[in-house]
Amino acid sequence: MNNTYNGEIRLRYGVIGTGAVGGFYGARLARSGREVHFLLHRDYDFVKEHGLFVDSCDGDFHLSNPHVYNDVARMPQCDVVLVALKSTNNHMLPRLLPPLLHERTLVVLIQNGIGVEEDVQQQFPDVWLAAGLAFICSAKTEPGRVCHQCYGSINIGNYSCPDEALIQSVTADLQAAGIEAHEVEYATARWRKAVWNMPFNGMTVALHCQTDELLQMPATRQLIREQMMEIVRATRAMGVEGVDEEFVEKMIVTTDAMTPYSPSMRLDWDFGRPMEIDYIYSRPLQIARQAGCPMPRLEMLEAELRFMQKQRQEKTKPHVAT
Amino acid sequence: MNNTYNGEIRLRYGVIGTGAVGGFYGARLARSGREVHFLLHRDYDFVKEHGLFVDSCDGDFHLSNPHVYNDVARMPQCDVVLVALKSTNNHMLPRLLPPLLHERTLVVLIQNGIGVEEDVQQQFPDVWLAAGLAFICSAKTEPGRVCHQCYGSINIGNYSCPDEALIQSVTADLQAAGIEAHEVEYATARWRKAVWNMPFNGMTVALHCQTDELLQMPATRQLIREQMMEIVRATRAMGVEGVDEEFVEKMIVTTDAMTPYSPSMRLDWDFGRPMEIDYIYSRPLQIARQAGCPMPRLEMLEAELRFMQKQRQEKTKPHVAT
Repeated sequence: MNNTYNGEIRLRYGVIGTGAVGGFYGARLARSGREVHFLLHRDYDFVKEHGLFVDSCDGDFHLSNPHVYNDVARMPQCDVVLVALKSTNNHMLPRLLPPLLHERTLVVLIQNGIGVEEDVQQQFPDVWLAAGLAFICSAKTEPGRVCHQCYGSINIGNYSCPDEALIQSVTADLQAAGIEAHEVEYATARWRKAVWNMPFNGMTVALHCQTDELLQMPATRQLIREQMMEIVRATRAMGVEGVDEEFVEKMIVTTDAMTPYSPSMRLDWDFGRPMEIDYIYSRPLQIARQAGCPMPRLEMLEAELRFMQKQRQEKTKPHVAT
Repeated sequence: MNNTYNGEIRLRYGVIGTGAVGGFYGARLARSGREVHFLLHRDYDFVKEHGLFVDSCDGDFHLSNPHVYNDVARMPQCDVVLVALKSTNNHMLPRLLPPLLHERTLVVLIQNGIGVEEDVQQQFPDVWLAAGLAFICSAKTEPGRVCHQCYGSINIGNYSCPDEALIQSVTADLQAAGIEAHEVEYATARWRKAVWNMPFNGMTVALHCQTDELLQMPATRQLIREQMMEIVRATRAMGVEGVDEEFVEKMIVTTDAMTPYSPSMRLDWDFGRPMEIDYIYSRPLQIARQAGCPMPRLEMLEAELRFMQKQRQEKTKPHVAT
């Protein structure tokens, strides 16, 4: 099924969710000569006509004539599918994914949270899955234009792919595209990412602030650390390795060094989009409770976010006075 | 020192903080014939000229010529002083209180939180102290006018008064004024009040809502219950009796039955006044930690409130852009 080129296996890539993240990694792979097929929605017409622009801290570039689609039925089967939808749209995968799959397709879920692979695997019991853990600040600022501000590495954690060489090829392709990419242990990587995601995503929404403000004030700096330590204790109870106090300190120091930052959930909230509460909070909190190690502060944060989301929904109903 | 009237001891009352709470209880005592001396600040001139108005669910009334002062130096020594200042103003007590005290004066602190008696006792080692635990919805809506919406009971918890008869006389005077008043065990009463105060005061500020909205949504209803249970566990560790799960359920059911309510901290926040974070949160949280039973959700709430207060302070500084 794979293309070959000069005797070398050339993987064919598909991107579902050509936004700030999927657009960036897909475009970098395409620029480095990989075959990449992009599914677009709102900005299909623009990209079809003008191509895809990437304004990047690593250097701007432009794909003048990418393979773009507004209908999965017209897309070819791919060897690797990068899914970079918001996890709140994962109910669309049973419709979007099948046309792109062959028997040995690797689906890489470049999504936030805990539990996405488990759920997608239930929907597609035979598909090969990996987690894509992106460390990137980027945004889609206008149709057909990805603005990549900083960072950009991606780690690949194998969830259910029996073909280890395929995982290595994907990692190598990303590296050949100039991206820092490593294969990592799945559970450790997902939970390490949660150490940053769970405190900062919700707290910047709840307190309507950015990362730096939370760390400047001693009371909230301590709270962020305690929330991170809840994850450390839960992973210990679950037997997940590599999520320890040292990593917590590293995350805090790293965030201190970042420019003031609004995590994706804060952006979702500000732009009136649904927040990824299910996979960033509810799922890991449930898993921790089942492991006998509940995370009270993060549970409280989940309740606050659910409340905020519900209040907003009710306020946007026309019959409710505000 | 006490007045006598028909052979009966008549206590002379002073009120420091003639606001929504102090104004109400003082006015009711005065209406029932007690001698009450009110310290006023902003609305002294109005009340001096027009008297004190009480619009009350128990029936409106008007004190046409109350004893009012704008300077404690002119006030007489009193047998009972009701202190109904916000606890954020307790630094003023060393100036306000001494002129009203004789050797057997009982000072009743009608204030929110945990630790006020301890701190006032440190400032006045010899004074007799009691806690006044008011369950009342009232507001000062305009100068010289107290608006009493509902409830109105007050419990008296003896902190350091060796004269048990004096406590009983005060309770009897309140009852004679038509107020539901009981003597209660000090520590139990203060912590029972905290069971309601700690969750609802802060959460209505953090989520900008009223009590009913918090209880309507399952996630926040559960959170409120868990926050209350943190206090139950801490009091058990401290050996304080009578703060149990049954009381928690009673508080939730009682609040369900209330009209949508904005607790005092929410009103303080809305009107730009400092919040009583020290006595409603920091002090009880510290005591619980020292007892080896920290309250993580309420600690998180404290951090959120401190953050909000600080952000507001910084936004009101003229040199900071918003």
